[in-house]
Formats: sequence, structure tokens, C-alpha cells
Amino acid sequence: MTLILSNDDVEKLLTMPDCVEALEQAYKELAFGRGVTRQRSDCITPTSHAPDAVYGLKSMDGVVPALGVGAIRINSDIVTNPKIGNTQRRVKVPAAPGNRYVGLVLLFSTANGEPLAIFPDGVLQHIRVGATNGLGVKYMAREDSRVLGLLGSGWQAETQLTAALTVRDIKEARCYSPTRENREAFAARMSEVTGIDVRPVEHPEDAVRGADIAMCGSNSIDPIFFKDWIEPGMHLSSIKKPEIDPAAIKAADRVAVHTHDTAPILVVAEGAPFQEESKGKSWNAAKDLDFSKFPTIADLIVGRAKGREGDKEVTCFLNNLGLGFQFAAAGAVIYKRAVEQGAGHDLPTDWFTETVHP
Amino acid sequence: MTLILSNDDVEKLLTMPDCVEALEQAYKELAFGRGVTRQRSDCITPTSHAPDAVYGLKSMDGVVPALGVGAIRINSDIVTNPKIGNTQRRVKVPAAPGNRYVGLVLLFSTANGEPLAIFPDGVLQHIRVGATNGLGVKYMAREDSRVLGLLGSGWQAETQLTAALTVRDIKEARCYSPTRENREAFAARMSEVTGIDVRPVEHPEDAVRGADIAMCGSNSIDPIFFKDWIEPGMHLSSIKKPEIDPAAIKAADRVAVHTHDTAPILVVAEGAPFQEESKGKSWNAAKDLDFSKFPTIADLIVGRAKGREGDKEVTCFLNNLGLGFQFAAAGAVIYKRAVEQGAGHDLPTDWFTETVHP
Repeated sequence: MTLILSNDDVEKLLTMPDCVEALEQAYKELAFGRGVTRQRSDCITPTSHAPDAVYGLKSMDGVVPALGVGAIRINSDIVTNPKIGNTQRRVKVPAAPGNRYVGLVLLFSTANGEPLAIFPDGVLQHIRVGATNGLGVKYMAREDSRVLGLLGSGWQAETQLTAALTVRDIKEARCYSPTRENREAFAARMSEVTGIDVRPVEHPEDAVRGADIAMCGSNSIDPIFFKDWIEPGMHLSSIKKPEIDPAAIKAADRVAVHTHDTAPILVVAEGAPFQEESKGKSWNAAKDLDFSKFPTIADLIVGRAKGREGDKEVTCFLNNLGLGFQFAAAGAVIYKRAVEQGAGHDLPTDWFTETVHP
Repeated sequence: MTLILSNDDVEKLLTMPDCVEALEQAYKELAFGRGVTRQRSDCITPTSHAPDAVYGLKSMDGVVPALGVGAIRINSDIVTNPKIGNTQRRVKVPAAPGNRYVGLVLLFSTANGEPLAIFPDGVLQHIRVGATNGLGVKYMAREDSRVLGLLGSGWQAETQLTAALTVRDIKEARCYSPTRENREAFAARMSEVTGIDVRPVEHPEDAVRGADIAMCGSNSIDPIFFKDWIEPGMHLSSIKKPEIDPAAIKAADRVAVHTHDTAPILVVAEGAPFQEESKGKSWNAAKDLDFSKFPTIADLIVGRAKGREGDKEVTCFLNNLGLGFQFAAAGAVIYKRAVEQGAGHDLPTDWFTETVHP
């Protein structure tokens, strides 16, 4: 049976607590080398879409034998680099028919090799980023953390908040993002969704001042959290390297990373207007820090390193790069539930493409 | 439009001359860095299929912007290592439902990212290996080559012969393989198919003695062609490194390789009974030769290196490792023809799996 699932299916089949638990179990396999993951690779070329755009074929894979699955995640992206204000942004264009993005997860059985499921990566992509930082909170933030400062108001911020609520008894969240309407809409909606008080604030400092946990969940490729904002006992969290200023990372008592892979294997074609300043900047952030010296989240989970000792320590988790392994771990849950619930079906083109930003 | 094609479709849509031409054009893109390819990766783990078997999730990808396509090829293999006689063999098990193998090619548009086609890799896998060695013959064998010595009688031997016939006016082929029935059946069938005289012989030396071209197309991981068999003006050809004894490679006047990648990126899980002797032996063959010094087939095609100068030179082409790029180049032809001919349709599970050994 090969199930074709939609993003809607995935959303119904996998909750944030499910994903946090699945990743936690799977990282134990990874820590002991029983599960494996392959460094992400990006092939970047010109595209006829536009002279200043690039095409990117990106893939990552991983296998969790204990769960009986391997997964490959593939993205087939058109990416532009418009200058918005003074900042160069990296924008994925939904260029496929029907204005859709293209990202797919293929799930295979390690028992007999068969393809178990194919589904778009968008929803899972969001949940797994959140779940990973959620594990950072679980293993590094103070047990009595109650106040969350959130920098960002997009989908990354949403899953960061949801994940933190899964592992800590958060009572209050304060959200800052540069555009007033965005942060206000986010706060109103997330107060409703989560049942806790989510409050929009006018300055980033207002979000993190007095917070037990400071979470970055933005699309910025420049630092948005700074050393001066650190308070004793705080846990810092980022979804990619550049969000937390290197000085702040260095000031933390303990730092952990998602993976020791520091960047994808990058193969860039001649003539591709690939913007090192835009994407490379993210991977090259904090270059003077030796990431291989920091424990990984898997190390913390199996007790090979401590996430925190004492209430005064400042801890910092950098979700520096994604792993195909995550799609295998969470994919196993999605597939099991889909079979139990009879979800999924045969597929037209639309099921290979998606409206959700992957 | 996302086409689901079968191996039968691919066989009808792509001829050997098509594939040779598509690769030849595409390698020019690769030579100038306008096309890109990513080193193959293999994730190897234990499998519940059998204690002495391994699961392998393997992927390779490449993009040819000039053809408007990128491709990823994925294999989800169950592999055993039985001892047959005194030799340890590497055997892919068709363990998926219906006793099928699992190998897929996904083709994407570089213009808008959309998935263009999905098809099993088996037939194309065979054709592209042959076509690659065919290009070796085209750029390295004497123009007046008439006699082909063939070591092997399986599907690899078949596509080697077909490819050689595409680029040279071969009049006679002699085939050796260890099992009499196999070589006799092969010779009878291929005489019929090709219209030339294909003759079975009792010893490998009988196949290559006096031949203009000596082609190895076997599943052996030990040398099957030796230095003493070399004659002036001969072209040697292998589909993987170990077939030609290192002493014979060193004795050649000119050597070219398919790629400077010498082995896949290999990630092996703890507890996987991975047989270095079996698979690793192939990648590690001729280790004392510096493959990075040999020109690639792409170098020969664009004239960066010469494949042959004069009729007395001994030339040698080593098709040392496959590239995802090949699937993109040939995939573009398959897709174009499929659209023209209205081939393909929606897909049940069987269209993700295959009976042809990939």
C-alpha cells in the first residue's frame, strides 16, 4: 500500500506532542548510531523563470530502523532574491501550476523496501522545526519556565509557541515582530488557539525582558537577539544560526545544536545568480564558533551532555540545520495513523505540489 | 501534468541512440559547469527482512538547466550477501509486495519546479550504463573497430553490446561468461536482436583475442580482464572499477573515467551487517591509482583531453560510478516523448515498484 496524503491529512494525523515524542525517541537511535541521516544537498542552477532567480533541487534523507522507515525529502524550488527596503530577502516563489510550491516526502519500509507514502512536506516541515526547538526547551530551559518571549509572528513563530507549550507550563507569551498588524493578528489568534495570554509588544526588548525563554522564530538572516538582553536563567532558542548574535551565543553557559552538519553540500552551476549574501549568510553566521564542540540535541536526550545545571545558567539551543532523519521519524507516526484511519488515496499532480510554504 | 510512467513506457520512449545522444549533449553542460550533479549517497541500516541483510536508501540527483530538468533517483533496497561457491556475492532482493524492487526517478522542471514525471529506474538504469560506455567507445576506440570481445552475458552485457553498435560499425561479437547455457542463450538472442554475428566462446581469452574493443559487462567484483590480454590499438571498457585488473589499467596509454567521485557518501548504521568485502571492494578497487588525474568522459566530449591519438594506442574507459545527472539528461528525452505520445497515467503502488532489477 502506497498512501498519497495531503497537507490536510498530515495536519490531522500528526500533533505537536506526537512529533516531539517521535523525534525524542528517534534521536536516541541517532545518538547511538542505530539510526542514520545523510547531509542535505542543494543543487543550484539558473532557471528560465527569471534571470535573477535560481532553481534549487534539494534533498535530505534518513533511516530509523527501529521504526521500520526511511524517508527522503525533496524540494524543487524557484528562489528569488528581491531587495525589500534595505534588506535582501530570499523568497521561494510558488511557480508550479496553480501557484504552488514543490516539496515532497517519500517514505519507505526498511523491512521490504516498499514505498509506504508520499506527501507534501509543508505541514511536517513546520511541525518538525517547532518540535526540535521544543526538545531544546525540554532539555535546557528551567522546569519552572512560565513566560515566553517570542520574536516573529509567522508560521515559524506559531510552531515555536506550540512546541514550548507542549514541554513547559507556559502561562504567558509576548510576541514582537516589526509589523504591528502581523503581531497583533498573531497574538489574537494564538491566544484563542492556545488558551494562554499571548500579547503583542512594540519592541523586541519588551518581548524578552523578564522572560524565562526567548525564542526566535523569524525569517531574518541578521541577528535579532542580542547579548544585552540576556538575563540569568534564561533559555535562548533559534530556528537558524544567524538569529542569535554570536556575542550572545558566547555569553551562554551552555550551548547545544541540532546537528554537527554546518551547511548543506552545495553544488552551484555556472551562471546561477546564487546570492551568498542571502542564503550563504545564514550558514556562515557565527563562523568563529566551533559548532562541532557543542553537544547535539541527541547528546542531551541520551544524557551524554547536560542541558542545564542550576536555575541561574543561561542556555542556548541553535536549530542550525534540518535533517532528513526528522522526516523519517515523524513520517512513521503519520503513516501508522493514516493506515489506522484509512486516510490517503491515489494522486493527481496537485498532490505533488502544495500551497503551504515548505 | 505529472506523468506516471512504467518501465515498459520507458523502454518504448528511449532508444539506445537517443540515450547516447542525450548524455553526450548533457555532458557538455556538465563539463562547463552549467549542469550540476550531486555525489551519490547511501544510508545503510539493519533490516527486519533477515539478520544478515541490510536496508539501503540511496539517492543521487542532478540538474540540466539547458534541458529544463532536474532529477532525483532513489533506491530503497534490501541487500543480502550470500556465499555462492567460494565467492561472496551482493544480491538485491525483490522484497517489496509482488516480489518487486524499489527504484524511482522523479523528474522536475527547472522552469517552475513542478514534478514532471515519476517512473521506475530499472530500464533507464540499464540503458544509461550502456550509453555511458558507448560514449567511451565513441571517444576512445579506433574508428575502424569491427570486432567486439564481451565478458558477461547478463543485462549489462546486452546494453554494452547495443551501445557499442550505436557508435561503431561492429561486425562481430564474441561473448564469454562462466556458465555455458547463459552465454549460448545470450549469443543466440543477441544475434537475432542486433543482426550481427554474436558468438559464445569457452574462455575469456577467446572473446578478447584479436578484438578491437574488449568490454566488461559483468556482476563480478574481482578482475576479469588482465594485462596479458592487451593488444595494440585495443579499447578496454568496464562498467565498474574492479573488472579491469589495475595492472591492465596502468598498461593503457590513455585512461578516462566517468566521474571523479570515487565512491558514494556512505552512512552506515551500527549493527548493519554491511559487507565491505562485497560492496566496498568495488569502490576500493585500484586504490593506488589516482582517479582524479584521469580525464572524465565529459572532458573528452568537449575536447579538453584526447581519447586517442593513433591506431596503436591502448585506451581504457572506466565507468566507475553513476551520476544523478544521467537520469536528468535521459529523463528529459523520456518526458518529451511521453508528452508527445500521450504515454503515462495515474499510479497505484505497483508503479512505484518494479520487476526489472534496478
